Amino acid sequence: MQMSLPCVKQPDVITCKAAVAWGAGKPLVIEEVNVNPPQAMEIRIKVVCTSLCRSDITAWESQAIFPRIFGHEATGIVESVGKGVTEFTEGDHVLTVFIGECGKCRQCTSGKSNICEVLGLERRGVMHCDQRTRFSINGEPIYHYCAVSSFSEYTVVHSGCAVKISSVVPLEKVCLLSCGVAAGLGAAWNVADISNGSSVVIFGLGTVGLSVAQGAKLRGASQIIGVDTNPEKGENAKAFGITAFINPHDSKDPIQQVIKNLTGGGADYSFECIGDTGMVTTALQACCDVNFSYLSVFLFPLSLSHIYFCVCDEFLFTELHSFVSGVSFKGWGLTVTLGVPKVKPEVTAHYGIFLTGRTLKGSLFGGWKPKSDLPSLVDMYTKKEIQVDEYITHNLPFEDVNKAFNLMKEGKCLRCVIHMAK
Amino acid sequence: MQMSLPCVKQPDVITCKAAVAWGAGKPLVIEEVNVNPPQAMEIRIKVVCTSLCRSDITAWESQAIFPRIFGHEATGIVESVGKGVTEFTEGDHVLTVFIGECGKCRQCTSGKSNICEVLGLERRGVMHCDQRTRFSINGEPIYHYCAVSSFSEYTVVHSGCAVKISSVVPLEKVCLLSCGVAAGLGAAWNVADISNGSSVVIFGLGTVGLSVAQGAKLRGASQIIGVDTNPEKGENAKAFGITAFINPHDSKDPIQQVIKNLTGGGADYSFECIGDTGMVTTALQACCDVNFSYLSVFLFPLSLSHIYFCVCDEFLFTELHSFVSGVSFKGWGLTVTLGVPKVKPEVTAHYGIFLTGRTLKGSLFGGWKPKSDLPSLVDMYTKKEIQVDEYITHNLPFEDVNKAFNLMKEGKCLRCVIHMAK
Repeated sequence: MQMSLPCVKQPDVITCKAAVAWGAGKPLVIEEVNVNPPQAMEIRIKVVCTSLCRSDITAWESQAIFPRIFGHEATGIVESVGKGVTEFTEGDHVLTVFIGECGKCRQCTSGKSNICEVLGLERRGVMHCDQRTRFSINGEPIYHYCAVSSFSEYTVVHSGCAVKISSVVPLEKVCLLSCGVAAGLGAAWNVADISNGSSVVIFGLGTVGLSVAQGAKLRGASQIIGVDTNPEKGENAKAFGITAFINPHDSKDPIQQVIKNLTGGGADYSFECIGDTGMVTTALQACCDVNFSYLSVFLFPLSLSHIYFCVCDEFLFTELHSFVSGVSFKGWGLTVTLGVPKVKPEVTAHYGIFLTGRTLKGSLFGGWKPKSDLPSLVDMYTKKEIQVDEYITHNLPFEDVNKAFNLMKEGKCLRCVIHMAK
Repeated sequence: MQMSLPCVKQPDVITCKAAVAWGAGKPLVIEEVNVNPPQAMEIRIKVVCTSLCRSDITAWESQAIFPRIFGHEATGIVESVGKGVTEFTEGDHVLTVFIGECGKCRQCTSGKSNICEVLGLERRGVMHCDQRTRFSINGEPIYHYCAVSSFSEYTVVHSGCAVKISSVVPLEKVCLLSCGVAAGLGAAWNVADISNGSSVVIFGLGTVGLSVAQGAKLRGASQIIGVDTNPEKGENAKAFGITAFINPHDSKDPIQQVIKNLTGGGADYSFECIGDTGMVTTALQACCDVNFSYLSVFLFPLSLSHIYFCVCDEFLFTELHSFVSGVSFKGWGLTVTLGVPKVKPEVTAHYGIFLTGRTLKGSLFGGWKPKSDLPSLVDMYTKKEIQVDEYITHNLPFEDVNKAFNLMKEGKCLRCVIHMAK
């Protein structure tokens, strides 16, 4: 006798509003889209809040995959789950993450990387399991972005790209821990491991840069210098720990020399949060070295012809080159690069910078493994041990999503939180 | 009544034999030179043994300061001391060092650097206190090299550039701890801090590279791959811990791909011991990443036009670029650069290498602070905890110093020890 199986309700296609980017740099259009049910190991989320991150803008401005739904810093509530999902059930509150954590791959089990081999850095605009989209309009695919696509009332993500959080945590605030604030704090704590009493310089004072500043402040850094060409960025930077603000446009000297003067020789740590590989080199040069007056002392007693011969010495060339170009030698310092450059992907620096004591490393999502680490970060927020609310400069309804893009392009906001429900 | 002061014997000028380099690449000429007495805080040393290091050759081949006395890996016996020297007395056995340690400057007291602000990296060919030489022929100055100039029967060094060692330690062996062997061991232990069971790749199998190998072996690395274009270098490399030898000339594939195949995805640590900034980039690319087959899996289901659009996505561009060029992404790994390049001083690498998990740092003298750290390294040698003798492939009398240069230029030696006394 055939047994009748219990009837399990299968999720349907949902039709909802989403902000669709139809082309590079073109204003988003709020459209009716179909959102397919979650497939195996996926979950469908009703997005509650999503904040705009600079990398949404960068990707939107570039010639990228279109049509597409951007947005990746988000919170929401699980609407339905696909086959095999046991970690989540309907009604769970979640934080989305652009780097997933499968927990099983070589990367996840290495103890040396936070970039999951399976779910890290998804940039193809499709879901992992079938290389297809879950969004469509009239049967035509609308591509995903960063494995999240939160500028939609509903989205589908791999269950490895969501982190369950307590239902008492305010979703309209902690969406910032989905990317920007976490990325900055992690760069300061996990990647640089800033020590008490140290000097720190941060290039670029957006949310990520100011989160590095908060991380440095909480580690007891004694000097936290912020660098930005937008004078407005300096105004509220002190609230996040910045002790001195430098606008490169205000100085005739190279910025690395201004920093050396301020720090008595250079910073212990420097962070590139702009996405400019030239600035990575500057950040390396802003690290500690012997001060310029010392170099002058040993050069000036020599005759010009002696200097000429010295220049030919491969080692001294290094020293003289440093004197002329502001390249740092004999010192120490760790430079962390966080930005994604739009142009010139190559980082270039004189070998002597490394040989005489500098280190360069990168930071993607601050070294956090999302499922393993983000719950403790959310916990720190609820205990008021870290600032998050302070980065929210604007709250906007979903229909004003393009205003958020304009505010960020014009450098007039830190984080705009977009509220999906009216 | 005037008191007569006790008569203190003042050191005289010594006339002795030294191997003088009169011009770039010209064979050294053994000449009678005058060696002035040591000035304040200096010591004059009767050199017992000195081994030839690759950087002597590099400086000698370059257009550098001439006439000059090369040599910097040495042991000797203190002959006389200058004013203010209390650390040494006549008859002390010493190891010379090319990076001194004053113990008082910002660098020495930082806990973050081994490159003394006062006595580190002396490349001007003169003494610190008066910017003059202690060597002369007919009143004309002969310049120093690397603060040591050990290709002379007697030399004068700053007391900060010598380390006292026990008189029972064999001077004809431990001169190798003055630079090459210490530099390699320190890069493995102090700078990279190699962990047990890890995989290591070393570019360049001279004494420094093979000392990195020894350091890796003593740390329990499970795989130590040596890379050198000289097939003879592979023969004895196993004795120092090398588990696999690669000659890039034997493979059609890029060397980083050969390493990835051997290590199942890339090395945990890579060391550039050649002095080639292009090889630093290769060393970064030889670190761990996702394997190529994974990249193929996700690319092949997509249509060509889709790939075209993907290429325009700034993040995916990174992934595709990695696929095409062999650049590594999603992984980890620490690259240590030890070499001093003769050409192209700039290190260039794709930002994504750093962003997705790689670190680049330099190592000068393996991070050792000479006075603080070398005594314990000499102690390890006497307890047979480290190999030193095994790097000595040739012993030569002083008059054959040019033979040593030829052997090293032809890649036919590791270390030639030159015995100054007959």
